[in-house]
Amino acid sequence: MWAAPAVRRVEWALKLKGIEYEYIEEDLFNKSPSLLKYNPVNKQVPVLLHRGKPLIESLVILEYIDETWKDNPILPKDPHGRAMARYWALYSDYKCRDATKDVFLAVGEDQGKAIKCLEETLKAFEEELKGKTFFGGQSIGYLDLALGWMAFWLGVSEEVACYKVLDIKMFPRFVSWIENFLKVPVIRDNLPSRDKTVEFFREYRQLQLSALGNA
Amino acid sequence: MWAAPAVRRVEWALKLKGIEYEYIEEDLFNKSPSLLKYNPVNKQVPVLLHRGKPLIESLVILEYIDETWKDNPILPKDPHGRAMARYWALYSDYKCRDATKDVFLAVGEDQGKAIKCLEETLKAFEEELKGKTFFGGQSIGYLDLALGWMAFWLGVSEEVACYKVLDIKMFPRFVSWIENFLKVPVIRDNLPSRDKTVEFFREYRQLQLSALGNA
Repeated sequence: MWAAPAVRRVEWALKLKGIEYEYIEEDLFNKSPSLLKYNPVNKQVPVLLHRGKPLIESLVILEYIDETWKDNPILPKDPHGRAMARYWALYSDYKCRDATKDVFLAVGEDQGKAIKCLEETLKAFEEELKGKTFFGGQSIGYLDLALGWMAFWLGVSEEVACYKVLDIKMFPRFVSWIENFLKVPVIRDNLPSRDKTVEFFREYRQLQLSALGNA
Repeated sequence: MWAAPAVRRVEWALKLKGIEYEYIEEDLFNKSPSLLKYNPVNKQVPVLLHRGKPLIESLVILEYIDETWKDNPILPKDPHGRAMARYWALYSDYKCRDATKDVFLAVGEDQGKAIKCLEETLKAFEEELKGKTFFGGQSIGYLDLALGWMAFWLGVSEEVACYKVLDIKMFPRFVSWIENFLKVPVIRDNLPSRDKTVEFFREYRQLQLSALGNA
């Protein structure tokens, strides 16, 4: 699914490792028999099929890739660094992605709460980036890939839903991180078109708001 | 916090590894300066303090423990097994724990939905347990520890909130797993008192329902 951040995340990791793969586009409004076969649990993408066995849930797939192809490790070496990278990735995926969805779709008080949650996260990441170009240090790693959705899709969300959290005065290190991250060749060359993505999410938002009766 | 499943999970892992530790009880209604210092991010327990550095988020702590003390590994050896254990642990923590909370506190339609989510999970675990005593195989491992809350606290929740999902006819393997899990010495000897836990959650539910205006 070309517009999905969780799918790109897996592709970035495979490219960083230099692993060849076949990409199969999935229409989530008309799921293929192959998706239902390989991910009967939640019927979502990405699914990585390796040696006939499906792997699901993008953060879990990143760890699988790192354990299976050991060159160019993406997780830090020391257990404490690994734990912090894992913690922030979970925090971003399970707390902040929902908050972003709320900012994107909610109105009024709910939207205000969701914006506050996003800002709390950005504050935390601002701290984590002290003295570093990337979360992984001098080069990108697991947490950079996990937060990649904030580098590209959060800006798209801001544009479509008319709000602003990525403020260079409030979050100078995080905004610089976004610039640096998007310049890394493996990321830059594996992003969807910005215009196409904005258009996709504009339509998606319209559909969702209609369904929620907010349009 | 003696009643919290996520705290026991970490203690079980430390005991399985034979690691000595100091346990410090935390009053979540009156958080200690030490908790606020070591976990300013979400101010929750458990926090594992090791070599002066705090680790937070119980699933992340389990991985840290497994990587730091390598004897008696709790995660499977092969990357696919590790990935599946991680996937189900996340699924249980981030999807089903919320559903359980909903069943515990919600009424009417919301409760019905939450029960359905719990039953879907139990179905999936029933499949995973085919031909195995524990999720880890012949002995308990990471996923058993991660699901430990279902072995003890889910039954408590059923009793307090008057519902039933743990049905031996519907989920024979899962219900057997609970029995076997609770018999493992390291688990059996490190559980809170059932009566005290029931009483704690009965009061907690009453407080929450009053706050929500459902009492």
